[in-house]
Amino acid sequence: MVDHLPGHKGRYILLNRGENFRTIWLHPDDDQTVQIIDQRRLPHEYTVSDLRSYRDGITAIAEMLVRGAPLIGATAAWSLYLAALEARGQRDAAAFIQTAADELAASRPTAVNLRWALDRVMHRLHTAGPDADRVALTRAEAEAICDEDVEISLGIGRHGRALIEEISKRKNGATVNVLTHCNAGSLATINWGTATAPIYLAQQAGIDVHVWVDETRPRNQGSQLTAWELAESGVPHTLIVDNAGGHLMQHGMVDICITGTDRTTRSGDVANKIGTYLKALAAADNNVPFYVALPSTTIDWDISDGVKDIPIEERDSREVSHIWGRSGSELLEVVTVGERTPISNFAFDVTPARLITGLITEHGVCAATEQGLSSLFPEQAKRA
Amino acid sequence: MVDHLPGHKGRYILLNRGENFRTIWLHPDDDQTVQIIDQRRLPHEYTVSDLRSYRDGITAIAEMLVRGAPLIGATAAWSLYLAALEARGQRDAAAFIQTAADELAASRPTAVNLRWALDRVMHRLHTAGPDADRVALTRAEAEAICDEDVEISLGIGRHGRALIEEISKRKNGATVNVLTHCNAGSLATINWGTATAPIYLAQQAGIDVHVWVDETRPRNQGSQLTAWELAESGVPHTLIVDNAGGHLMQHGMVDICITGTDRTTRSGDVANKIGTYLKALAAADNNVPFYVALPSTTIDWDISDGVKDIPIEERDSREVSHIWGRSGSELLEVVTVGERTPISNFAFDVTPARLITGLITEHGVCAATEQGLSSLFPEQAKRA
Repeated sequence: MVDHLPGHKGRYILLNRGENFRTIWLHPDDDQTVQIIDQRRLPHEYTVSDLRSYRDGITAIAEMLVRGAPLIGATAAWSLYLAALEARGQRDAAAFIQTAADELAASRPTAVNLRWALDRVMHRLHTAGPDADRVALTRAEAEAICDEDVEISLGIGRHGRALIEEISKRKNGATVNVLTHCNAGSLATINWGTATAPIYLAQQAGIDVHVWVDETRPRNQGSQLTAWELAESGVPHTLIVDNAGGHLMQHGMVDICITGTDRTTRSGDVANKIGTYLKALAAADNNVPFYVALPSTTIDWDISDGVKDIPIEERDSREVSHIWGRSGSELLEVVTVGERTPISNFAFDVTPARLITGLITEHGVCAATEQGLSSLFPEQAKRA
Repeated sequence: MVDHLPGHKGRYILLNRGENFRTIWLHPDDDQTVQIIDQRRLPHEYTVSDLRSYRDGITAIAEMLVRGAPLIGATAAWSLYLAALEARGQRDAAAFIQTAADELAASRPTAVNLRWALDRVMHRLHTAGPDADRVALTRAEAEAICDEDVEISLGIGRHGRALIEEISKRKNGATVNVLTHCNAGSLATINWGTATAPIYLAQQAGIDVHVWVDETRPRNQGSQLTAWELAESGVPHTLIVDNAGGHLMQHGMVDICITGTDRTTRSGDVANKIGTYLKALAAADNNVPFYVALPSTTIDWDISDGVKDIPIEERDSREVSHIWGRSGSELLEVVTVGERTPISNFAFDVTPARLITGLITEHGVCAATEQGLSSLFPEQAKRA
């Protein structure tokens, strides 16, 4: 189903059709090259980019060829492998890799996962000592980070699939309509995604599932990424504007909402892409279950009140005023607003736990409460 | 403040700076030409278009140079004046005008106001008899329709201004932040608008007012029309994506919401641009007053339950997939979604009366209930 895609290399772009799909991988014929998808050109062009040095990795992160916390982290880890290759044979190899790590950390300063992945790989190098095989160590660690991320997504997927299965049974096998916001999909992770993992596993289990995809202004991750990966995976879906979800829920056209989250408080409030809160309000008003899928790494055990305690990033107004798309065979940007129009661009909002039916984690589904989260992650809760 | 606008003719484009602004007017030096703003090119170009025949009027309506129910109706009325001019001296003048009326009625089949305005002018002609001065009669009726619309907007404006004034006093004169959705502004009416009239009159009364303008996907009437007319009028405003309103209300950044409506049930449910319902939910969740401004002509006394009884129009998916804007000096359209992405495009949603603090009409402000509306419009309520 993907043969027509330009740049398709045949092996890694079956998405959830097979176990093989990954958003970052070692070149099959050249283990000194890491490959990624240039996500900036989706959905119009599928382009694989080669990373041959850690600086290529920095470019990929800074210029957003890759995005999504898990994938950014994995790209940073693989970039340290490329740095280790570059440092091989150098006298100051350790210093070279440390410089690479510092530069990588600065490539997207607010990405928490980026720092986490770098620290993990560097810790492995430091504990291995000066005579270790840095290339082998960094490669093993990058591979482990990716493999673990896939396992986390699959864990979320299995627990979330059960929720979809239950609705399907209640509807006697009729289509289960899922609404999602933004892209918490395969493209944001290594594979399967977080909010999308339950959908992909439900599809594989033969459940009749259909996804309403919020466009997700201003960056259009829904229309450009989620819609693309669902199409690639053969999952029936329909794109809607962000304004439409309430109407659909009023008319019984949504059975369950599943979104991702960037940060989750210990009491179950979630900070996710701006607009998530509005969908949660509509779900509550129409008795539609609203679930949030998350790897436990997004839980911030130190804070409780999300609205009060999570600072919301304001981003460049160009994200609102400029829209990128295809005109004939050309990809270009148009300005949609007048020159004198002031713009405000908050990136996230906080959905209070009271509006959330449950949290889907790699350990299971729980209530969006401190008690719920503590029951699934007792050790982390105790440490906090 | 508008001198830089291309096409500016000097007299009618001061918006609410004076009483003179209108969205449709007779050419000041040539009473055989009607002039309108080509709203398709806003906010990038201010272009005045000349209508010299009723067929020019049909083009203006069908190709959406003009939009908004009151303005469409007024354009139809003025087009009959142009038809009367064309028919002057013809033997079959009455038949010519009737043909014009039929063709105008078909130019946008679902516009209720279009039919209403045509019927009103044709009724005037029929009751005047075969020897009447058709040119003078149609001109007088078109002028009356426009004058009455301005009076209705000013009535809504005065009653709505009092609400803003009250908030301003409570805040000791600090900025009153109004959130609005879509364009229920001067550009949709003859002047002042419905939802915007209270804002313009508050500004004229020296109240410190600021407007959050929802982009209003998919057609972007907020970013392209409301933002433009607020800028022209010197009203402080900030454009936001439709997803942002909930976050703003959570953080006390909105004092009042005011939207328009396309259709209001006798119990106070309103059908307005898709996404209005989501903002009403956020307002209710954060104790922000949510008002709907409406001319009493939008009240449908025959129906009560809006969610059940108002059919929601689905429009062309191109409105979602194609976005129009400026690239350098060129105006063009880009496609933002992949070719295989199915799209659904509901144009309106229904906000239940329980979420509405009050209705602002030309007769006053009332509760969004049958009792409230009946108290302001007892005769219409009795007839129904």
